Amino acid sequence: MSTLVTGIGELTTNDDELGRMRDAAVVLEGGLVAWVGQAAAAPAADARVDVAGRAVLPGWVDSHTHLVFAGDRTAEFEARMAGEPYAAGGIGVTVAATRAASDDELAANLDRLADEALRGGTTALEVKTGYGLTVADELRSARIAAARADAVTFLGAHLVPEGSDAQGYVDLVAGEMLEAVAPHVDAVDVFCERGAFDEQQSRRVLEAARARGLALRVHGNQLGPGPGTRLAVELGALSVDHVAFLDDDEVAMLADSWHGGRGTVATVLPACDLSTRMPLAPARRLLDAGAVVAIASNCNPGTSYTTSMAYCVATAVLQMGLTVEEAVRAATLGGAAAIDRDAPRTGRDGRPLAPLGRIRPGARADLQVLDAPSVTHLAYRPGVPLVHAVWRAGDLVVAPDRLS
Amino acid sequence: MSTLVTGIGELTTNDDELGRMRDAAVVLEGGLVAWVGQAAAAPAADARVDVAGRAVLPGWVDSHTHLVFAGDRTAEFEARMAGEPYAAGGIGVTVAATRAASDDELAANLDRLADEALRGGTTALEVKTGYGLTVADELRSARIAAARADAVTFLGAHLVPEGSDAQGYVDLVAGEMLEAVAPHVDAVDVFCERGAFDEQQSRRVLEAARARGLALRVHGNQLGPGPGTRLAVELGALSVDHVAFLDDDEVAMLADSWHGGRGTVATVLPACDLSTRMPLAPARRLLDAGAVVAIASNCNPGTSYTTSMAYCVATAVLQMGLTVEEAVRAATLGGAAAIDRDAPRTGRDGRPLAPLGRIRPGARADLQVLDAPSVTHLAYRPGVPLVHAVWRAGDLVVAPDRLS
Ligand SMILES: [Zn+2]
Ligand SMILES: [Zn+2]
Repeated sequence: MSTLVTGIGELTTNDDELGRMRDAAVVLEGGLVAWVGQAAAAPAADARVDVAGRAVLPGWVDSHTHLVFAGDRTAEFEARMAGEPYAAGGIGVTVAATRAASDDELAANLDRLADEALRGGTTALEVKTGYGLTVADELRSARIAAARADAVTFLGAHLVPEGSDAQGYVDLVAGEMLEAVAPHVDAVDVFCERGAFDEQQSRRVLEAARARGLALRVHGNQLGPGPGTRLAVELGALSVDHVAFLDDDEVAMLADSWHGGRGTVATVLPACDLSTRMPLAPARRLLDAGAVVAIASNCNPGTSYTTSMAYCVATAVLQMGLTVEEAVRAATLGGAAAIDRDAPRTGRDGRPLAPLGRIRPGARADLQVLDAPSVTHLAYRPGVPLVHAVWRAGDLVVAPDRLS
Repeated sequence: MSTLVTGIGELTTNDDELGRMRDAAVVLEGGLVAWVGQAAAAPAADARVDVAGRAVLPGWVDSHTHLVFAGDRTAEFEARMAGEPYAAGGIGVTVAATRAASDDELAANLDRLADEALRGGTTALEVKTGYGLTVADELRSARIAAARADAVTFLGAHLVPEGSDAQGYVDLVAGEMLEAVAPHVDAVDVFCERGAFDEQQSRRVLEAARARGLALRVHGNQLGPGPGTRLAVELGALSVDHVAFLDDDEVAMLADSWHGGRGTVATVLPACDLSTRMPLAPARRLLDAGAVVAIASNCNPGTSYTTSMAYCVATAVLQMGLTVEEAVRAATLGGAAAIDRDAPRTGRDGRPLAPLGRIRPGARADLQVLDAPSVTHLAYRPGVPLVHAVWRAGDLVVAPDRLS
């Protein structure tokens, strides 16, 4: 069963040869993009959908989320916005609620947010553990994430849980906990920041993960200067995320990491920067230096409780100095690079995984249709819900009644 | 026919006595709010809707829009975001397209955007003329706006049209043009800014409007310091809008204007500030000084092409230092004050107009229901479309399938 999507007023392919096309069409078949070209030259297909001049682009690839959690931190957010102290806040609140929740409750909350993300155009999600912080709770978090996410990241090193000493906890994370979760995850992440894990502790966890054959990520340079970015590049991490405080050497290091092979993606999290009233990450400087940038939501109940990649893209354009094209690319192909899905891969189960973040033959058929003639409207019309329809792996998962 | 809306987890009334309520209910009848109280004490009604613990607040009152227009300025926006010059841009582009459009085209475009705003929770709209700039085109713009808007503003003094000399054009605006449009509008506005109309020209138009019995507004202090705010307060304008560049005297003047009667609302336009990459208006300073602040979209195709009041509210909280409660109040009751609808009034046709911006007996039954337990989520979850249902003047105009 093949589907011809035609009448595409503007098609963003993220493919260097195809570029941005006018009056285009795409054929979807078997969950993949089978053909891309001018509408007038489109082949026949079993079904035909005319999107009436609308813009089509790859679905968002949200490469940084923390969606396995329970509990509520609305009051903490409200206090932060009122400039008031809030003693009871922080990750520990979510850890306690997550441990107390049933598997079904955690899965239902993840599904609720992943469905919301899908309605907003997000067709691929990375999901981290990190609110369990015991072997059993991290393991079930990884399993719950794996049932829904395109990439699962083990973040046992999110913070040192109450009642543990730091060194003993790092031993646990890098040892028994890693061993337990490894079959269920694609990557290992460390919160390398003052007050969380220092350079030596972070290195310990990341090196254990690398020895276990897992990909690496780092939460780094969020709250101030720190060793996270240098560590990520040195160890060949897929991404370093947050990167709000970078010196010129670190920016250059991220750019240079791509010379002669795949390097480390700099993932910026605009909604988190704003929700914590912190400076926006220097995405413009990173792009100017030649770094590969991803934009992600960092959806979590503490510091960035949004699934809206469109909001992140609009912020990147309006306030971080990116062009619309750069921001869209960072939120699609950039995210795909950050989860190592910008090229064909093999999954944990040995099956082939189609690449994400581009619309070209062989890519997973993840498309969003905007109720707008161009992607520019994502920043030109901030806050207006523009998603008209979404295909994920060839399935029409979001469809307005009026889609023919 | 009365409707009981019950199961309200959190009710924002904007009423000093009712405050913010838990477990509340509201009865709507004859287009008005008939009763507000605890759900357990609610009277019987002809129909009953249970909103299942969701938050309910007044619909947004968007007190500053320019929705009578035609034409496209996407490329100008794109160039601005890319930091490139764009010679062909500006209001003149929209003026030419608006003059060339038919009445039906203008009305259809207004309806499209007003419907979009309604789906986003906006139940009352001010709409300005200002893209006609001839007697005939301003008159038809006012008529088209009046068919849809809650408040119509004549903005003949938007800019001096090509081919006119400034003084001659001011004479026309304050004379024949004002005379023609006056029966169709509630207020007169002037773009008092360097490059548009100076203090003396602005005063001329505003005084003519006042003599004609119309309310006043001023676009002022948008691009730099200027006389707009002082002029607005001196002449008793309903609002001065933009107010990005204010000195302490001007802030105090706006606050003082409310001593002993109604004063001048300071209307901030966060989406416009961001879309033009200008500083955000000092809403925090204004509130701290005791001024009355409104938040509006300034929806227009040049500098702020969004209808999303939720985006403006989230921006006000995350980036302008307002609490959620302050921002919500500014976008509802503040807007109502800016269009002089915060108390009962008489319309141009002599009929009574119910007040807007509050949920209390006698107010127009304009309610929005959020898919969230509290209004805090408007800033906590930026970019996520949270509108679940909307009543406007007692009619359920936005309703999800699952609303019982
Ligand atoms: Zn994170
Ligand atoms: Zn305006």
